[in-house]
Amino acid sequence: MDFFENTIESKNIYKGKIIDVNVHTVELPNGKISKREIVNHSGGVAIIAFKDKDTVLLVEQFRKPIEGTLLELPAGKIEKGEDIEICGIRELEEETGYKAKDFKYLGKVVTSPGFCDEYIYIYKAENLYKGKDGLGDEDEFISVKELKIDKIKEMIKSGEITDAKTISALMFL
Amino acid sequence: MDFFENTIESKNIYKGKIIDVNVHTVELPNGKISKREIVNHSGGVAIIAFKDKDTVLLVEQFRKPIEGTLLELPAGKIEKGEDIEICGIRELEEETGYKAKDFKYLGKVVTSPGFCDEYIYIYKAENLYKGKDGLGDEDEFISVKELKIDKIKEMIKSGEITDAKTISALMFL
Repeated sequence: MDFFENTIESKNIYKGKIIDVNVHTVELPNGKISKREIVNHSGGVAIIAFKDKDTVLLVEQFRKPIEGTLLELPAGKIEKGEDIEICGIRELEEETGYKAKDFKYLGKVVTSPGFCDEYIYIYKAENLYKGKDGLGDEDEFISVKELKIDKIKEMIKSGEITDAKTISALMFL
Repeated sequence: MDFFENTIESKNIYKGKIIDVNVHTVELPNGKISKREIVNHSGGVAIIAFKDKDTVLLVEQFRKPIEGTLLELPAGKIEKGEDIEICGIRELEEETGYKAKDFKYLGKVVTSPGFCDEYIYIYKAENLYKGKDGLGDEDEFISVKELKIDKIKEMIKSGEITDAKTISALMFL
């Protein structure tokens, strides 16, 4: 099976801080021509950080695109040229104040493959200890919560937790 | 806790077929001004369609943003003004050729809340029967697979299935 779509032309629409947007003109497997609207993103890291064996850290923050607050795993964007694991360690400390003695890669997920190339790399952090005082990014407004894994599963089924990276990550445990 | 970010100004960057892109100038809780790059998407539906009690349908297709083929739940975009359940029924038939006697809402996930408002609504389809001949959208190139739920879970852990909506959906079963 070869469903490859070859790019004939690519037009840049936007170069931003978090995303770039490009429209590709592609040749479909049947020879027809179509357009693909593509959001390019450098990817992110999400961390399942265990406070104890059945308790993990979640962060609550306002998410402008949905005009509401979400409860999510600590996570953040990979900076240009940044090592993925270093990004995860940095984001965990910036968002929760914790460092971890053990930091292990679990897997990756692609969030919206129909129009976006963003991958989220999922790590497990164990044996946490307090990092530097104060949280990292002064323009991030974040509240840290400690929740039992069973409670998180309940909150997924009840619709209180809706973030796909957070829900997906539990499948790797 | 009120982390609300009020939009002071919004600038449209792009109006496309699948996505719109807007940049909002927002006031942060500390009074500072920042920018939010936002991709607007009408949302989608993904369907866990049971061929028998432990076998579900997945679809394999080329995804241009990642320049590769993915194995995913049948899914598709909600058209303007379309009822969400009707969208799910339509997409299931277009992508797999099947209709379902029983179609039930399980929950929703937000795919990339840092920059995008896309929600995926997850449904369970049971008691499948063949719909109209031939698959729906002639410019979609899709291969339908039948996989055991246990096999899908293995393929998530091994990294063969990476699609976040597909992985998330299993948490609702």
